[in-house]
Amino acid sequence: GIKLERLKNRMKTMAQIGATDKGGVSRLALTEEDRKARKLFIQWMQELGLTTRVDDLGNIYGRLEGIDPKASPVLTGSHLDSVPKGGKFDGTLGVLAALEAVETIKEKGIKPLRSIEIVSFTNEEGARFTPQMLGSGVIAGKFTKDYVYGRKDAEGLLFKEELERIGFMGCPENRITCANSFVELHIEQGPILEAEEKSIGVVEGIAGFYWLKLKVSGQSDHSGSTPMNMRKDSLVAASSIITDIYQWASERKDGLVATVGQIQAFPGIINAIPGETVFTLDIRHADPEKLEEAVSEATSIIQQSSADVTITEIGSNPPVRFSKEVTSLIEESCKDANVSYRKIISGAGHDAMYMNNITETAMIFVPSTNGKSHCEEEHTAYPDIEKGANVLYLTLWKLANR
Amino acid sequence: GIKLERLKNRMKTMAQIGATDKGGVSRLALTEEDRKARKLFIQWMQELGLTTRVDDLGNIYGRLEGIDPKASPVLTGSHLDSVPKGGKFDGTLGVLAALEAVETIKEKGIKPLRSIEIVSFTNEEGARFTPQMLGSGVIAGKFTKDYVYGRKDAEGLLFKEELERIGFMGCPENRITCANSFVELHIEQGPILEAEEKSIGVVEGIAGFYWLKLKVSGQSDHSGSTPMNMRKDSLVAASSIITDIYQWASERKDGLVATVGQIQAFPGIINAIPGETVFTLDIRHADPEKLEEAVSEATSIIQQSSADVTITEIGSNPPVRFSKEVTSLIEESCKDANVSYRKIISGAGHDAMYMNNITETAMIFVPSTNGKSHCEEEHTAYPDIEKGANVLYLTLWKLANR
Ligand SMILES: NC(=O)NCCC(=O)O
Ligand SMILES: NC(=O)NCCC(=O)O
Repeated sequence: GIKLERLKNRMKTMAQIGATDKGGVSRLALTEEDRKARKLFIQWMQELGLTTRVDDLGNIYGRLEGIDPKASPVLTGSHLDSVPKGGKFDGTLGVLAALEAVETIKEKGIKPLRSIEIVSFTNEEGARFTPQMLGSGVIAGKFTKDYVYGRKDAEGLLFKEELERIGFMGCPENRITCANSFVELHIEQGPILEAEEKSIGVVEGIAGFYWLKLKVSGQSDHSGSTPMNMRKDSLVAASSIITDIYQWASERKDGLVATVGQIQAFPGIINAIPGETVFTLDIRHADPEKLEEAVSEATSIIQQSSADVTITEIGSNPPVRFSKEVTSLIEESCKDANVSYRKIISGAGHDAMYMNNITETAMIFVPSTNGKSHCEEEHTAYPDIEKGANVLYLTLWKLANR
Repeated sequence: GIKLERLKNRMKTMAQIGATDKGGVSRLALTEEDRKARKLFIQWMQELGLTTRVDDLGNIYGRLEGIDPKASPVLTGSHLDSVPKGGKFDGTLGVLAALEAVETIKEKGIKPLRSIEIVSFTNEEGARFTPQMLGSGVIAGKFTKDYVYGRKDAEGLLFKEELERIGFMGCPENRITCANSFVELHIEQGPILEAEEKSIGVVEGIAGFYWLKLKVSGQSDHSGSTPMNMRKDSLVAASSIITDIYQWASERKDGLVATVGQIQAFPGIINAIPGETVFTLDIRHADPEKLEEAVSEATSIIQQSSADVTITEIGSNPPVRFSKEVTSLIEESCKDANVSYRKIISGAGHDAMYMNNITETAMIFVPSTNGKSHCEEEHTAYPDIEKGANVLYLTLWKLANR
């Protein structure tokens, strides 16, 4: 089996890059912190004798050669970027557990039939450059390269220039072209496994999402000299939409989630009525029809508001169903390792969501303490991590010898 | 009387500094734009033969010597800073109309008894450094110098260092120590004069204000994997407070105004439930008791919310009543100039609010088209500006010969 101490040490070393004072990490895509994390990850893969390469999206690969060099490789991995003040397990665990599983396979002394490639995708979070999963999205044909290169962060900096700046602009030839399968280990980021006392989630699919941007227009005016009845306050209008959406989503009770995560009021000073308010809306559902229905209900709630609102789509993807063959192998591995598991649907998006377009894909979840993620308190207990990494190792071995 | 073309030309030249594409100005306190505006203003005063000086708050003065050098001077002026994407008349008109009035007095060829000093105060708006009216506030004993020097902008830059950086750190000896009176011309920034077709507002006082900062604490979590019923969304809680406050203030119908101008959600990304939301609340009333009552009503509305909210005060001042003698002289000047006027209370704060603490003070308002200000559409018609500048000129002459 895998060596927990080795994995734990790497997790702790990696967590120092972008560490926050409350035990989380801020390691946004294509920043200095991301650059450092990438360098360390490549160094570790090279120390293990893997052949590393970087593609033109900054996705990083490390290859363990199999017996048959012509057989399509088995892929595994996740991402090293984080949200601001995020957790140290989200993404990183999937990358370093992949490294641990591959090291364990190497230690076996027997080569697998197929090569195994570890991959770390660029900008999974969508926190610095929207939308999320840009690196895997291009690989899987969801986005064009030009679209991704032209994405800007909040300060107007371009994805392409930031990728060049941190020295991770690789060659298009280095992208994955054909793969046998992809399996990603990730923290659950939700409360289900913990509540049901299961160590592993065998992930059968991912909820679909719509990311929308709403712009409410009003009239900017002086806060002191404009009577209440002469105002067109865009923030008051936005606030009432936010509470309406929250109430509607809460009352549905069918697994729908709707979130306003970002808001800006302009001019954004104490003594001016906000003339414009911009906010985001993230809507998700595991059922494709219910997702479409929810988006149209949300749109009509927004349009019923007396305010002047424009809605634009930032990104969307329908719900995804993973490969039955790969999930079966993960289940088998859980049984082999004698760990408790349940089948589960992911509410959060993952690189596996897009990889599923081009190869047989599934995911392995480990429990999140209190269901928390995208916050500094994010945690997964090491005994669960050990079980997850072992299930990943067993699954990779099965896939690589199919 | 005053020469409108000369004043208009100066207004247009000044409006180029920090001009926005939609006809407004962004000239925040102690920025490069502010520096340029200050230099130009000093140059104009020197061309007119005034003696200029700068004090240790960056307040700028220009003195026209009177017959009696020992008599306390009459002060007039306003501010050159603006809000982001603000108007070109707010503040600037009071400074340049003062210059025009003094030039007209000079052209008379007869010296007034008292000296007249034009003043442009630092950071009136409170848009870059909160609270508002920092320059006049120190002069009038409202704030200590250390307090003002330690104020930080949104990027953490210090007032003191920015004052030094733009080269406007003057001497404490240059502050106003004793004054006979202060009169400030300003745009109304509200709809009353226009609605009643009056050219001049004789300002009898200013509404009191409370500027509060509210911090709502919730729990940051993943937007995709956290069920609706497990959320502690600080932005949803803040939104419901914002709509409640708006409804309450609108229903009072007694002249109370309450505004949320600024809001920030943290971590502030699309796919995280905001764990913390911070926003401002600006409450104003012309009646001191009603203001106190309103603040305690607002506080209990906030505390009734189920959210965890902390309230801190950014700044406050009770309503102000101006000098009856000065307002009478302004009224007389309106009659002399044969312009229509009405008495009025200002909803917006002004440097005159604090100057009233140390000398006999009043203000002259000119109408704002559609009542708009703190926006690029802010406008005042030049025929009204001509009347206002003439009333200022006549009033200064009376005050300087009392
Ligand atoms: N797993 C995860 O946090 N992904 C980020 C993109 C998303 O929010 O779906
Ligand atoms: N007149 C004006 O806009 N003053 C700024 C400070 C305030 O909002 O009272």
